[in-house]
Amino acid sequence: MSEILRKTRTAMEEGGIDLLLTSSPENVTYLGGVSPPSHRTVRSRHAFCIVPLEGPSTYVVIQLEERTVRPRITSDRVVAYREFAEDPIRVVADLVTELVGTDKCVGVETGHLPARDMDRLRDYLPEAKLRATDDVLERLRLVKTGEELVKIRHIGAVAERAALTAIQEAGRGDTERDIANRVTELYIEGGGDQLTMLVVASGDRSAEPNAPATDKQIAQGDLVRIDVIGTMQNYCSDVARTAIVGEPTLEQQKIWSVLRDGHERTLEAMRPGALSSDLYRDYAFLMDAADLPRYHFLGHGLGITLHENPFISSLHDVRLEEGMVMCVEPLCLIGGRFGMQLEDEILITAEGCELLTTAGPLLKIGG
Amino acid sequence: MSEILRKTRTAMEEGGIDLLLTSSPENVTYLGGVSPPSHRTVRSRHAFCIVPLEGPSTYVVIQLEERTVRPRITSDRVVAYREFAEDPIRVVADLVTELVGTDKCVGVETGHLPARDMDRLRDYLPEAKLRATDDVLERLRLVKTGEELVKIRHIGAVAERAALTAIQEAGRGDTERDIANRVTELYIEGGGDQLTMLVVASGDRSAEPNAPATDKQIAQGDLVRIDVIGTMQNYCSDVARTAIVGEPTLEQQKIWSVLRDGHERTLEAMRPGALSSDLYRDYAFLMDAADLPRYHFLGHGLGITLHENPFISSLHDVRLEEGMVMCVEPLCLIGGRFGMQLEDEILITAEGCELLTTAGPLLKIGG
Repeated sequence: MSEILRKTRTAMEEGGIDLLLTSSPENVTYLGGVSPPSHRTVRSRHAFCIVPLEGPSTYVVIQLEERTVRPRITSDRVVAYREFAEDPIRVVADLVTELVGTDKCVGVETGHLPARDMDRLRDYLPEAKLRATDDVLERLRLVKTGEELVKIRHIGAVAERAALTAIQEAGRGDTERDIANRVTELYIEGGGDQLTMLVVASGDRSAEPNAPATDKQIAQGDLVRIDVIGTMQNYCSDVARTAIVGEPTLEQQKIWSVLRDGHERTLEAMRPGALSSDLYRDYAFLMDAADLPRYHFLGHGLGITLHENPFISSLHDVRLEEGMVMCVEPLCLIGGRFGMQLEDEILITAEGCELLTTAGPLLKIGG
Repeated sequence: MSEILRKTRTAMEEGGIDLLLTSSPENVTYLGGVSPPSHRTVRSRHAFCIVPLEGPSTYVVIQLEERTVRPRITSDRVVAYREFAEDPIRVVADLVTELVGTDKCVGVETGHLPARDMDRLRDYLPEAKLRATDDVLERLRLVKTGEELVKIRHIGAVAERAALTAIQEAGRGDTERDIANRVTELYIEGGGDQLTMLVVASGDRSAEPNAPATDKQIAQGDLVRIDVIGTMQNYCSDVARTAIVGEPTLEQQKIWSVLRDGHERTLEAMRPGALSSDLYRDYAFLMDAADLPRYHFLGHGLGITLHENPFISSLHDVRLEEGMVMCVEPLCLIGGRFGMQLEDEILITAEGCELLTTAGPLLKIGG
């Protein structure tokens, strides 16, 4: 049994859950090894990973994609349903009955499963106790296994190198899209599967969170903010760098130094036992003291999903633990003018933390 | 008021719906003009488009992406909520109350809104009549407006040219990924925003539906199946072509001629009033007569989503209407051996149909 499945069954036992029914791309991937190609694209093409406390873990997939995903499925068996002809919720209800009977406690992802499908499941399994288990899965995914870390390390390094190389090769007159194309090329060459949300934003656009590349040319004095968000073998990268075309203004130099300062202080404080809201408080203090607008979070967990706990915000009190992977991204966005950001991926270790990527000084884009 | 909004309010009036609350990326886009960048990537970052029968249509977006999407929002006003600090479902409930009061009929997308959020909405609006309106929106989106058609035409042509050019430039020794990279480059150059599910599958992989490109080199005798699925300004392209490296076998020639035949007969039958299940029956007859495995559908509607009604299958009885856009994709996948497919985008016109893309003979990949 895999380490993930072992952890999951222990949590189920502790929570009195007889069978876990996951439906979201992230949790189907976590427990079953893969999310089918059109799981996200065509919402009716449900996929499920069903884990009973005892008995075979079961992967439910649309028949037409069964062959494509089968080599990556880690469940004990695979059940395929025919599109249009079979109701996948009915298929799942029958499997639940077969595995644990009709009246057991079934954990459901109520934060993902649409209301209509939840109603159907209730109709098909009127005696079952359907319980929301979104938080159980979220907690399980907080601490990464060794296998997960190998992938996260690899694609994080690829993302970092892609951003750096694209910046080094860029010149005035290039468009944001040119830079984005180069990042994409390097990311795919490095083993990445896709860029799910690549940000290349220059000039006043650099102040916009999550802005995709446009045909805007980069010009003298522009700040260029690049955030390389993509995936490889299910795991995300999220690394951001900022570059200046020419020389930064005094104001920009000052902001950068505050962000660097915040970054370093955060890294020093990251260790098992540290509270995520405390990390945010220190960053907030620095930004407020410098009279700079602060972002509502300073970082977040990273894994199969881009944003997961532990969030570093004033509203999240999560104690850090060894094996968590987090992004720390001090950023300062001044709407209508410019934005600066640095973002690294960090692994919490027994004694403190390890940088999986390492931001340096403000980067430069030459003539 | 836009043509889409006018159509929507007419349907609401007919259905006795006082306020429509859309939450899915496709319907928020349809009614509000845009889906925020992380709407699909981070599930907790809800976006909504609220359309009351009278009064301002209202777009609800996470504050940090407000500036990025605002230029593309078509709603009368925008309400932003702060991540973590505010519950977007609470914000929506308050807006519903403000717009129509607490006891009216509110249309909800139960096929999208997660069960947990639906429960919250019920808690916040105990007197409201929450009604599933997934089918109302699906019907509205069937017939495209003039503005929608301009975009669909453009990106369909780009997808077709990208597939053709990449095939013409390909040679033995290239990997599937090389071809995929070239398609991507041409697609983005042509104005495409992203490829959401690009298929480049060669040799026995060509029999796998929705198979992404790998590092496999294309070899003499391989069939290469390319399906260019992506989006531009919210609208999808879906165009597939098949090429052979060298010469097709007699079996492959025969299959191709059956597929071509099925394609042509379908196009001849496509006109207002035709029943989608009848189109499938003719294709099924041809494939069965040739003793070939048939796919469970021959085509589908295309628009903001990749797969929408009218589906061309034995289980869908939709009467075609002027202004519908459909993909017709006769394909034959022989598991473990090879797959062949041609797919064009078709507009239903007053008298019949118009090809937005035009598949030719089986393509060739040279030395």
